[in-house]
Amino acid sequence: MSQVAPAKPRVVIIGAGFVGLYAAKALRNAPVDVVIVDQNNYHTFQPLIYQVATAALEPEEVAHGVRAIFRRQQNFAFRQATVSGVDWEGKALELVGGDTLEFDYLIIGAGAVYNDFGIPGVKEHAFYLKSLSEAVNIRSHILRQFERASADPSLIDQGALNVVIVGGGPTGVEMAGALTELFSRVLPKDYPNLDVSRAKVILVEMLDFLLPPYGERSRAYSEEVLRERGVEVRLGTALAEVRDHEVEFKGGETVPTETLIWAAGVRGNPLVDALDVELEKAARIKVNPDLSLPGHPYAFAAGDVAGSKYEDGKLHPQVAQVAIQGGKFIAKTIAAEVEGKGGRGTFTYFDKGNMAIIGRNAGVAELSKVFGGLRLRGLLGWLAWLFIHLVYLPGYRNRVNAFTDWVYSYFTFDRRARLITEMAPSPTEVTNHTDGAASEQQVTRKNREAQFVAR
Amino acid sequence: MSQVAPAKPRVVIIGAGFVGLYAAKALRNAPVDVVIVDQNNYHTFQPLIYQVATAALEPEEVAHGVRAIFRRQQNFAFRQATVSGVDWEGKALELVGGDTLEFDYLIIGAGAVYNDFGIPGVKEHAFYLKSLSEAVNIRSHILRQFERASADPSLIDQGALNVVIVGGGPTGVEMAGALTELFSRVLPKDYPNLDVSRAKVILVEMLDFLLPPYGERSRAYSEEVLRERGVEVRLGTALAEVRDHEVEFKGGETVPTETLIWAAGVRGNPLVDALDVELEKAARIKVNPDLSLPGHPYAFAAGDVAGSKYEDGKLHPQVAQVAIQGGKFIAKTIAAEVEGKGGRGTFTYFDKGNMAIIGRNAGVAELSKVFGGLRLRGLLGWLAWLFIHLVYLPGYRNRVNAFTDWVYSYFTFDRRARLITEMAPSPTEVTNHTDGAASEQQVTRKNREAQFVAR
Repeated sequence: MSQVAPAKPRVVIIGAGFVGLYAAKALRNAPVDVVIVDQNNYHTFQPLIYQVATAALEPEEVAHGVRAIFRRQQNFAFRQATVSGVDWEGKALELVGGDTLEFDYLIIGAGAVYNDFGIPGVKEHAFYLKSLSEAVNIRSHILRQFERASADPSLIDQGALNVVIVGGGPTGVEMAGALTELFSRVLPKDYPNLDVSRAKVILVEMLDFLLPPYGERSRAYSEEVLRERGVEVRLGTALAEVRDHEVEFKGGETVPTETLIWAAGVRGNPLVDALDVELEKAARIKVNPDLSLPGHPYAFAAGDVAGSKYEDGKLHPQVAQVAIQGGKFIAKTIAAEVEGKGGRGTFTYFDKGNMAIIGRNAGVAELSKVFGGLRLRGLLGWLAWLFIHLVYLPGYRNRVNAFTDWVYSYFTFDRRARLITEMAPSPTEVTNHTDGAASEQQVTRKNREAQFVAR
Repeated sequence: MSQVAPAKPRVVIIGAGFVGLYAAKALRNAPVDVVIVDQNNYHTFQPLIYQVATAALEPEEVAHGVRAIFRRQQNFAFRQATVSGVDWEGKALELVGGDTLEFDYLIIGAGAVYNDFGIPGVKEHAFYLKSLSEAVNIRSHILRQFERASADPSLIDQGALNVVIVGGGPTGVEMAGALTELFSRVLPKDYPNLDVSRAKVILVEMLDFLLPPYGERSRAYSEEVLRERGVEVRLGTALAEVRDHEVEFKGGETVPTETLIWAAGVRGNPLVDALDVELEKAARIKVNPDLSLPGHPYAFAAGDVAGSKYEDGKLHPQVAQVAIQGGKFIAKTIAAEVEGKGGRGTFTYFDKGNMAIIGRNAGVAELSKVFGGLRLRGLLGWLAWLFIHLVYLPGYRNRVNAFTDWVYSYFTFDRRARLITEMAPSPTEVTNHTDGAASEQQVTRKNREAQFVAR
């Protein structure tokens, strides 16, 4: 669909993540047309998808239709499509299928995907906690192992109920904490004939401590809480290889498992390889201090896919706040330029602090010095986390539903529906993995599931 | 897994539908062990899945984990598996994968699947409104057509927004009514640049009236309301063939569409073909007056899969109440026999009446003479329908959530998340279709979707 040049400058945004949402909203009164392109018709609230994977929330509660979010914004349009490349000369995006989409300004907020660092077997066997479909499928895969073990308890000896989580950052810690609660509080009621206490959650981290970005006391607290609640925390341990029914650590030790969750590292969306742009390490797009791309002053990148930096040259962390602030900053720059108020500034990331939840009544929050450098652990850290995530979750009803679910689970120790379903990846989500073989990986895993059922 | 004979007689139930749920519950105090076998780990509340297909409810609201339902029942066990056959001599079910499951009593409540009556193209192209995954995929498929049209409005001329529903029974009528509301009230706000009023809902019925089981005034009322609200009702019209982008009616007229929903007829679950049992018409299992199978006094069938009859020899309708009452009746028979209170009775279906919803403020309810033969139309019929369905929906939270959604939608004209996602069919759901080519059908439809996205 080639189109005539629009009357107003057109700002095209790749991705309906935090960058896209906050940039598009900040442009609502600017004299521009805004188009978000995404392969899904919904925004995924990534900070909460691990709760979908652990049956604490339903997928619809952490997703929100893009069109619904922007219903009242006159200068907004949405296009469900996958970007395959860019024609920098013609200022047009190339979409899978052959259409093109012209732009005057481009904002790249395509996010990150997991990086397997070339460890053999990760690509074929690991689950990644990055998209809604992956989260649903992790939940179903784990519950399916319990169904298998219920039919044949000898499978427990073969490690069917072991979950290995690789990566001791916030994602790995939150997933481990939520999973051990699911195993100790919820599933024993579903499987009275099964010795669920033999289900193991093993959290593996290469460094000698968890939660690298946090202070020492938060790190120690997290480790202590996880161990108390039954997580086997293995520090200073690196993964060597993943095979069909086991993982092998460096040093040769093996652990039998059917479930490896990879939370150890990310790289920029593979789309960057098709854009012919300069990259920082881990495939993050190199950007100028104003977040524009070197050589492409009308194109910007922010969030996980961008290599924006602190003054000392260190890359910004890949967290929601960097994406939100980056999206807003770019929107302001474009709005000012279009209105002739030119002059570009420098993007400075305002670090409000870090928060992670470890489990029931247990969270860690470290606010930045601007907020008095407050450090919360335990119940207060947990409540702060819940509050902040509710505030940022898009959609009034999602907030109400998530809140209701949390309150209900808190008092009943019950979880949501625990359905075993299989959600197909987004039509082109396979390209979201680290290389073209990802589609095979999808097939491989599916085949494994199908084989179980056919057993 | 062959097992030693249980101490207590074991009642194995095929299917976690209405028959299975109500039979298992009624056996809770009987001196038996109860095992439900189902390919899914959840019960699907079929009367409401059309609301999932029209984005009025989320899938989790009409599904409930089987283990959660029976948490407090000591003599209950669940097995997620697919039945492939039966060894009548050895009194054991054969499961896909080779395991067997011994029984002393067998209850078959495997339900029905759609019957395409051999009309060319239905198998390959039609959506069936019978399982949760089908409902989710209908919703996504329809929304995807709107995304396509939004990118290229000329597709409207090619019929991309036409939905053809075949079958004017309750399912077809309810689906048509809910869909026309989605089109007229909700989607115009999502697609402000699209002339959504050109989206057509076409309801096709071979007979000269809608809702065959209802009285004349209810039929006329339904037709009138549907027409008023924009549904194109075509009576006395039969389908001749379905092709890639169009359907052809008998007489030669064609209508361009990408979406055909089949609600025209059912047959017994294909499992019956593997059971070596006598069949009534439409592949329903022949049963004695006590619902036992001829020649197999310890095996029973009820619900959609069974050919239970009125005194005059007419088959019972395939509705929830027949399944519920049948399941309870069989449970009572087995409990009495096991307790030595023998003597089998005759199953009599107590027809409480019929109810269907046509749309906002519009329902029809015809209660049986026992309840005074009350006939409700309009607002009262609608409220009665909502009330009854809430009462029967399993799970307290599902009830609360569904009620909240209905109230919210009623006042805001908004619907739930409207996510475009693809839910994989149950591992073996393909065997639920009318023949072995069904797996190809699944592939065909998925390919079509994939082709769109790759366009």
